[in-house]
Amino acid sequence: MKNILIIGAGKSSSALIKYLLDKSDEENLRLTIGDISTENALKLIKNHKNAKAIQLDVFDAHPREKEIEKTDIVISMLPARFHLEVAKDCIKFKKHMVTASYVSKEMKALDNAAKENGLVFMNEIGLDPGIDHMSAMQVIDKIRESGAKMLLFESFCGGLVAPESDTNLWNYKFTWNPRNVVLAGQGGAAMFIQESTYKYIPYHKLFRRTEFLKIDNQKFEAYANRDSLKYRSAYGLDDIPTMYRGTIRRVGFSRAWNIFVQLGMTDDSYTIEDSENMSYRDFVNLFLAYSPSDSVELKLRSYLKIDQDDIMWEKLVELDLFNPKKKIELVNATPAQILQKILEDSWTLQENDKDMIVMQHLFGYEFNGEKHQIESSLMVLGENQTYTAMAKTVGLPVAIAALKILKGDIKTPGVQIPITKEVYKPILKELENHGIKFTERKVKYLGYNPDHITG
Amino acid sequence: MKNILIIGAGKSSSALIKYLLDKSDEENLRLTIGDISTENALKLIKNHKNAKAIQLDVFDAHPREKEIEKTDIVISMLPARFHLEVAKDCIKFKKHMVTASYVSKEMKALDNAAKENGLVFMNEIGLDPGIDHMSAMQVIDKIRESGAKMLLFESFCGGLVAPESDTNLWNYKFTWNPRNVVLAGQGGAAMFIQESTYKYIPYHKLFRRTEFLKIDNQKFEAYANRDSLKYRSAYGLDDIPTMYRGTIRRVGFSRAWNIFVQLGMTDDSYTIEDSENMSYRDFVNLFLAYSPSDSVELKLRSYLKIDQDDIMWEKLVELDLFNPKKKIELVNATPAQILQKILEDSWTLQENDKDMIVMQHLFGYEFNGEKHQIESSLMVLGENQTYTAMAKTVGLPVAIAALKILKGDIKTPGVQIPITKEVYKPILKELENHGIKFTERKVKYLGYNPDHITG
Repeated sequence: MKNILIIGAGKSSSALIKYLLDKSDEENLRLTIGDISTENALKLIKNHKNAKAIQLDVFDAHPREKEIEKTDIVISMLPARFHLEVAKDCIKFKKHMVTASYVSKEMKALDNAAKENGLVFMNEIGLDPGIDHMSAMQVIDKIRESGAKMLLFESFCGGLVAPESDTNLWNYKFTWNPRNVVLAGQGGAAMFIQESTYKYIPYHKLFRRTEFLKIDNQKFEAYANRDSLKYRSAYGLDDIPTMYRGTIRRVGFSRAWNIFVQLGMTDDSYTIEDSENMSYRDFVNLFLAYSPSDSVELKLRSYLKIDQDDIMWEKLVELDLFNPKKKIELVNATPAQILQKILEDSWTLQENDKDMIVMQHLFGYEFNGEKHQIESSLMVLGENQTYTAMAKTVGLPVAIAALKILKGDIKTPGVQIPITKEVYKPILKELENHGIKFTERKVKYLGYNPDHITG
Repeated sequence: MKNILIIGAGKSSSALIKYLLDKSDEENLRLTIGDISTENALKLIKNHKNAKAIQLDVFDAHPREKEIEKTDIVISMLPARFHLEVAKDCIKFKKHMVTASYVSKEMKALDNAAKENGLVFMNEIGLDPGIDHMSAMQVIDKIRESGAKMLLFESFCGGLVAPESDTNLWNYKFTWNPRNVVLAGQGGAAMFIQESTYKYIPYHKLFRRTEFLKIDNQKFEAYANRDSLKYRSAYGLDDIPTMYRGTIRRVGFSRAWNIFVQLGMTDDSYTIEDSENMSYRDFVNLFLAYSPSDSVELKLRSYLKIDQDDIMWEKLVELDLFNPKKKIELVNATPAQILQKILEDSWTLQENDKDMIVMQHLFGYEFNGEKHQIESSLMVLGENQTYTAMAKTVGLPVAIAALKILKGDIKTPGVQIPITKEVYKPILKELENHGIKFTERKVKYLGYNPDHITG
């Protein structure tokens, strides 16, 4: 019998728990799901005989240690900043650990201790980061093993609303943390490299420098991630001339989102006095020049040069942005918090809405003097509001990794991310059984200089 | 005999030292000028019998204390972050202190100690802050004492090149710290209040939301300062419906400066790899989309929609921004540092160049049901590269204040800024003898809603 302790029973734990429960008889697993409240965990385990829900405060050292000591592996689905105490206990009691979070400096510092104790500390094994690492490395390794040289790597990912639930002009609803969507791209210029030239895009231009892409014959757009070069070394692509990572949206989203950026509505650095009594219309007016007579609408149109027949305008109207009666009701809120509230009115998933995950990698390479390109795409639809595409793509790789570590199929110890064959091969294979399967096809190599022009 | 210790013999100390030396026989003053190097101090005192230059490191406690103990008043012309140790010594040895810097939290904390010891700690008594406080408060007090109610206060200030030395398309040269000019407006949205409505301008729109003003029949423009409401309480204007502070430039400067902002060239938050070997042209290209064939020029024109016949373009060309041969030569520099270097090539004052200071206040008020407006303007020209308009307007109020404190004309103790009659009246009067004189005239009240439209 193997015990698994899952800490955190939030949105992203549903598919993870289901996967492990479905395997629990066959693999003789016992699940303990700890969270600050047992409510959600009880819903997810549905009286399954191999699982129990416990109340667990991760900052309460004694019960935390007690639970970690009893188990065989720990899965932490809490936000990244909560992992460290758990990770230290895992070292102390010699338990493996799995998270879907980015490797923090503090987590990285446990690498030696994990190795000395033969422990696998697997991180970044959700969707993005996670499935992106694994699916990219599988193709990159294959290309390199054939003797070819990598020329280009571009990778795009987005969480969207499924076409059947796509009912607004933005073609967007919040399928994940809305705050991250409102603040996306802030904190510094986006950086990437194209044909050996570094490129920088400041935040206020980010949503006007999108690239188009096609997945499954549908057109999408993507804006650049903050640091496209982050995994250049980890992937062994230090000398690659082109590397770009982006976030996928439906075509036209970014151009309209740019209105909020230009107005200053995504700013989270200061609070607005008396925001609770302001109307949505008052909020918009904060960012426009004073006029005793001109309307907020005309001032905005004129300021940002929005044509009469531009669909961007209808997108703003759809959000009820100019309503003088609807109150903000948030006390001392930042512009970003207020914008989030306004968007949540319109973009919250309804009970029967389904979400969608799209991912695409482009790999350019040279083999025997000829250039080639591989396009690898993934599209996953959610089943309902519990088993969303997001929950499946984040939770399933975590669950599969945990089980494979338990069974000894993944055994190289240390603090790691899923970029080795030992890890990505079996996990990608198993994901296919759950409908998470990339479509790979050879396309014409394009790069950014197909005609070899110098100038 | 009275001793004055002046710490810092930089650009802003010339007029200050000259003023005190000119008065030194009559007032029986002895000046000691301490700086990390005596070179500049020696130039400024020109063997005057009542002054000596000493080498002084403000962080070397023993010699600093020794000098402060010996003197009757300390003038610190160092950057604000160097004042604190000096200020503490002034408390210890019971000496008055004068600076032209903003009152830091740490300086403010010495208020009680200064009061208990009967010491005047006068700060913000340069140009801006300084002359702006005094000249504004003189008019505001007069308006209020007449029984009128303040409706509007707008205040603008700028350091520019004098018309006779104005030789470039930007109508601008660096007359003060170039780094501050490059970073101006960063760090948060600009905030002000118009007709009781708060207004916020994000940095990337700041240079496109300028206001025009007229001083001495010349047209200028101004962009909003970060926090126009900073002195609302200090000036007793807590309920004023309109308050705005701005920085003055020649018309057209801001619209062209906005190009740098839009490109991301004023960003000081990250460094550029291999910047020393890049050309000016390479630098520009970092912020433009990759193309194997299109020119940097056309990419920039197209990206920022600069028309063929727009003078903005000539302003960029004048800076030699597209030169593929001129190297940046700064190692691991930020975009802002690189831009500063490029601008310094073109905007550094030449030996015979003169500078100019312009300031304007607008005061709107209501008296007996009628609205009025007073416009108060100042224009000061520099004499040469030593006795610049900047050095005069910063240094003279400091020198005058120091002498008046020494003589007991200004005596209210405490950490303060020059907003009381005791301070501003005699200093403004004395400044007039040195050509620093405001022209005041009544104009038609405009405000932002002259026709009382509601809508």
